[in-house]
Formats: sequence, structure tokens, C-alpha cells
Amino acid sequence: MKLYDFPKAPNPRRVNIFLAEKGIEIERVPTDLFKGEHMSPEYMAKNPACDIPMLELDNGTCISQIRGITRYFEASNPSTPMMGTTPEENALVEMWEHLAFMNGLLAVAEVFRNTAEGFADRAVVGPHNYKQLPELAERGAQRLQNFYTDFNQRLADNEYVAGDFYSLADITTLVVCDFAKWIKEDIPASCTHLQAWYEKVSQRPAVLANP
Amino acid sequence: MKLYDFPKAPNPRRVNIFLAEKGIEIERVPTDLFKGEHMSPEYMAKNPACDIPMLELDNGTCISQIRGITRYFEASNPSTPMMGTTPEENALVEMWEHLAFMNGLLAVAEVFRNTAEGFADRAVVGPHNYKQLPELAERGAQRLQNFYTDFNQRLADNEYVAGDFYSLADITTLVVCDFAKWIKEDIPASCTHLQAWYEKVSQRPAVLANP
Repeated sequence: MKLYDFPKAPNPRRVNIFLAEKGIEIERVPTDLFKGEHMSPEYMAKNPACDIPMLELDNGTCISQIRGITRYFEASNPSTPMMGTTPEENALVEMWEHLAFMNGLLAVAEVFRNTAEGFADRAVVGPHNYKQLPELAERGAQRLQNFYTDFNQRLADNEYVAGDFYSLADITTLVVCDFAKWIKEDIPASCTHLQAWYEKVSQRPAVLANP
Repeated sequence: MKLYDFPKAPNPRRVNIFLAEKGIEIERVPTDLFKGEHMSPEYMAKNPACDIPMLELDNGTCISQIRGITRYFEASNPSTPMMGTTPEENALVEMWEHLAFMNGLLAVAEVFRNTAEGFADRAVVGPHNYKQLPELAERGAQRLQNFYTDFNQRLADNEYVAGDFYSLADITTLVVCDFAKWIKEDIPASCTHLQAWYEKVSQRPAVLANP
């Protein structure tokens, strides 16, 4: 089993922290996003969505998308659960991970991919080219501010994003806060609950090991 | 337990087909999206993301997001699995459901929400207002065409979207194909594999019962 990985980027980092929390070690195949190695014919034959990370199983099946890869390991290595332990907890993790992804990660990505010079005509992840939309970058910046205040509100009443237990929803939320630094944004001073949570989860060994 | 539901809309339909496939019956609370009932103070107190559907458990916990609601029922009612039965199948369902959502459902939504008169200033699902971006609607229309050809390719080699078994990934893909009709788009004649799959899954009793 091999994980095609580019640890600098936010999506691979979500998986790397998740695996470290579960104590899973796995062979890595470094795949340089900035050099376009995810667009090589060899890589795209395995992963037509041409994103990183990608998990290649020993039988040749290739799993892409963070949801696919994390689910594989949660199902095959259920000790140290990272998606809750009851149907209600399972559901809350999915709900909050999705909200962090939609309203946080995609908001930052809308800014980054629609403004960065290196992403001209590459405004959307995947095999197809789309031109950058400056207005979408503006909207992403507005959405990020609402993400900060909404998640600050959530963390005013809850120790962790999905409730009283740490989960994949925290990992994605943490990665959003760090990815935002790529576009020179940071948690606003008024978001004291989000900031306190951020400082706490940033000190976890699995996070420190995957900066 | 109650499901706040608006069966006409694509996201509630994903859950309704899913529940019908699993044979789960549940109390519904009709909540009219077109009348703005999802923005009432009472509803938003339960679901700050103010989208439909939303599942209210008997203990008062409210679960939103299709991922949250479907996971709750898959975990609590594992008979008639709709997300695969092995870690590999589980992962493939998550992967392909995510790709159908990102590249299909969001593409159609980009067109619909950024052009429909009733969605002026409501271009993004959720509690915050964002103005419509005509350029994003154009890009969504381009993305939908790529969705059709990419999923046609997938279904050239696979009986169902996630592989040789029917799953939630098929439900979302089917809902994309029908949601596209809202913006006057349909499966292109060249996408024969996608069309054959569409005709087959459209005949399932759970789909016929939730048109």
C-alpha cells in the first residue's frame, strides 16, 4: 500500500495528521504538485481526478479524495476512532467536517486558486482547465470571515468541532486556519474561542509532526 | 426522530432515495424552501447552517448536511448497506460520492444559484448573503459538461458509479442528472454509458417513489 503525498499542501496534510493520530505508518511516494507531477500520464492513469493525496492499495485499486482515503483507514483500522464512536457522533463528524470543508477550505481555495500566478487557468482542482475568476476570489475572502465567526460560535459551546471529542472535523478546521495564512489571513482577534481551540489542537503530537 | 424535508429540492431527494433504499420510514416535517421557512428563527436555532434536510433526534441533537444524515442511518441501520461493505468499498463510495457532489451537484448549483431570480443575493447555501456571480454560472455550465464526460467514462468500465455495487454514489449522480434539467441541461447523446446507467437506476422503486 502506498500514499502519493505532497506534505506541504493542505489536503495531503489532512490525511497525514489523521494517519499520525491513528498511529498508522505507510509507504509514501513523494509527488510534487508544484512540479506538476500530478498531471503526468502515469499518475493520471491511476487517478483521473489528478489530485494529491492518492492511496494505491496492494491489489491496484486507487482511492482519491480525502473522504475516500480517511474512510479506508477508519474502516480498516477502527482503533483510535477519528470519526466518532456512535451513530450520533459519526453523523456529527461528517456534518462538521463537511461544513469546515465547504465554508472554510473551499473559501480559502477560492481566494488562492483564483489569484495565485502559478494557477492561471488552473482555478479548479482536477484534469480540466478553468480560468481564474477575480470575483470568486473576492467572495472567498468574504466567506472566510464568516467561517471564522461561525466556527468561533460553535467552539464557544463545544470543546471540539464535532462536540466533546476530537475528530477529523478538528483536523480539517485546523488545516483551514493554517491554509488561510497562505493568503495572509488569520483568526480575527475577536474569535477568542476559535483561537483557544486552535492553540490547543496545534499542540497535539500528530499535528506538531505534520507542520 | 423527525426529518425536516422539502422533497422537490435535490439535496432532500438524495436523503429520501437513500432512506427508501434502506426501507426506513420516519416522521417528516415539511419545510418550504421557496417560502423561506429554512430562514425562520425557530429553524435556524436548530440548524444554523439553515439548509434542508435536517434530522432532529429524539434527544434534541440536530444533524444537517447530507453526509451527516446519511451516515447516521448507515451506522444505526446497517442492513441494506448503501456505502459498501468492505473498507475498500466504503472508500470508493466516499470518493465517488464526493466527486459527483463537487463536479456535478456544485456545478449545477453554480449555474442555478447564480442566475435564478429568486436567489439574488443568495448565491451560496447558508445563513450569509452573497451576490450572484454571472461568471461563476458560466464556469458551472462548463464544469457540468466535463462531469457528463468524466462519469460517462467511469460508467464505461463499471456497472455502478463506485464499482460493481449500487450505493449512495449512484444516488447523488442520479440527482445531479435530474437537477441539471432545472437549468435545461441533459446527458449529451454521446454519453451512452451514462445514459444507459441513468435509465437503469431511474427504474429502481426507491427512485420512482421519490421523483
